Amino acid sequence: MYRLVLVRHGESEWNKLNLFTGWTDVDLSENGHKEAIKAGQLLKDAGYDFDLAYTSYLKRAIHTLHHILDEMDLDWIEEHKSWRLNERHYGALQGLNKAETAEKYGEQQVKIWRRSFAVCPPALEKDDPRSPALQKMYAGIDPSLLPQTESLAITIQRVVPYFESEIKPQILAGRKVLIAAHGNSLRALVKYFDQISDDDIAGVNIPTGVPLVYEFDDQFHVQKHFYLGDQSEVEAKMNAVAQQGKAK
Amino acid sequence: MYRLVLVRHGESEWNKLNLFTGWTDVDLSENGHKEAIKAGQLLKDAGYDFDLAYTSYLKRAIHTLHHILDEMDLDWIEEHKSWRLNERHYGALQGLNKAETAEKYGEQQVKIWRRSFAVCPPALEKDDPRSPALQKMYAGIDPSLLPQTESLAITIQRVVPYFESEIKPQILAGRKVLIAAHGNSLRALVKYFDQISDDDIAGVNIPTGVPLVYEFDDQFHVQKHFYLGDQSEVEAKMNAVAQQGKAK
Repeated sequence: MYRLVLVRHGESEWNKLNLFTGWTDVDLSENGHKEAIKAGQLLKDAGYDFDLAYTSYLKRAIHTLHHILDEMDLDWIEEHKSWRLNERHYGALQGLNKAETAEKYGEQQVKIWRRSFAVCPPALEKDDPRSPALQKMYAGIDPSLLPQTESLAITIQRVVPYFESEIKPQILAGRKVLIAAHGNSLRALVKYFDQISDDDIAGVNIPTGVPLVYEFDDQFHVQKHFYLGDQSEVEAKMNAVAQQGKAK
Repeated sequence: MYRLVLVRHGESEWNKLNLFTGWTDVDLSENGHKEAIKAGQLLKDAGYDFDLAYTSYLKRAIHTLHHILDEMDLDWIEEHKSWRLNERHYGALQGLNKAETAEKYGEQQVKIWRRSFAVCPPALEKDDPRSPALQKMYAGIDPSLLPQTESLAITIQRVVPYFESEIKPQILAGRKVLIAAHGNSLRALVKYFDQISDDDIAGVNIPTGVPLVYEFDDQFHVQKHFYLGDQSEVEAKMNAVAQQGKAK
């Protein structure tokens, strides 16, 4: 039996402001720091242990990971950061208010951008300062790989191969792995693990700062998955995610 | 020309209590967190940049590194943690008060333990719970490599080969490297870089939380080294380190 734990970062400064964030590198809010600390305490209290951690290039996920490791007294374990675990790139919507965007384009259009499987938000222009290829932190990466916008389908194409080539072999080798990442990079993994259809993934909302435990059999088929902690709180957090992007 | 920056972690909870720390995994004090943040601000204001960081297995160094990277907006860079960059192991002195130890054994003996090149403090018994081989965080390491006590000479034997094999090739490849570590693991490097004699290294005190910049020529010979920031403050911090271990 193999086990893997996923954690979506806690609330960010822009979640709080209800802005589309994507690859914008905003930090956790005060509440987000608390959520991450609580995730670490839940994992510690439930007796979990890790010897390898993965996260994205974005500080809200990195800080979430560091809070968890610190609570568990596991600061010292090996960690890898990859842009392939970044949030879905939200294109030209990055920095716009979700409710205002819903008022302007209609809730239906925003829902399509947020939850359709294959539709991308409007792309950034190549010379837009928000373009990853123009940012220092992606300077070491082949620019042809870097997105100007992404659908969930495109996000899956970078997340799943990274999981397959880098993370899964470590789990199969018996290492206890934690991934701290983002709503959509984690939905990419969840869709892949649970073989959720392109339509049904729209209804899957991952709550912030709650450890999501997957257990796999010897063939790496999912045996079960569950959230740690108080289940009514988990439900409330999932509903909060689902409500974002509605006009006020 | 190659450049490397070293930073000794900020004040720890046990520095503050004047206890011998060694491999005891104590956290930064509130002041230590502030020192680390200031080190990051100094590096940022002076225009430094890094793409690779090394630190020890001990959280006071790891947290120092994370504060620096966060201040510089470099949370995303690659980082490696190694026990080989840990503080010198202080054997059975770990957890004892420096001033009380000086009263009990004499200032001269404590000075020998602290600053002689080749004399080790009394070793931990193998079954002492403080033994690294009994601690989870060193479970993945060949126990025959793990110390029960160390002199500076022994510390050098694990730090310098690690630098030579892991870090130096990265610097020679043009990567901009930061090392956040400890008083004695950094003295090991400084002795090696500056070819300081076994006697003279006793007089070298590295202040906490102050970036120490080394510049090397094409043959990796030191061209110069200097501390960033206010030089009188650096002097005062060096003197404070030199004064530890005296009877009150």
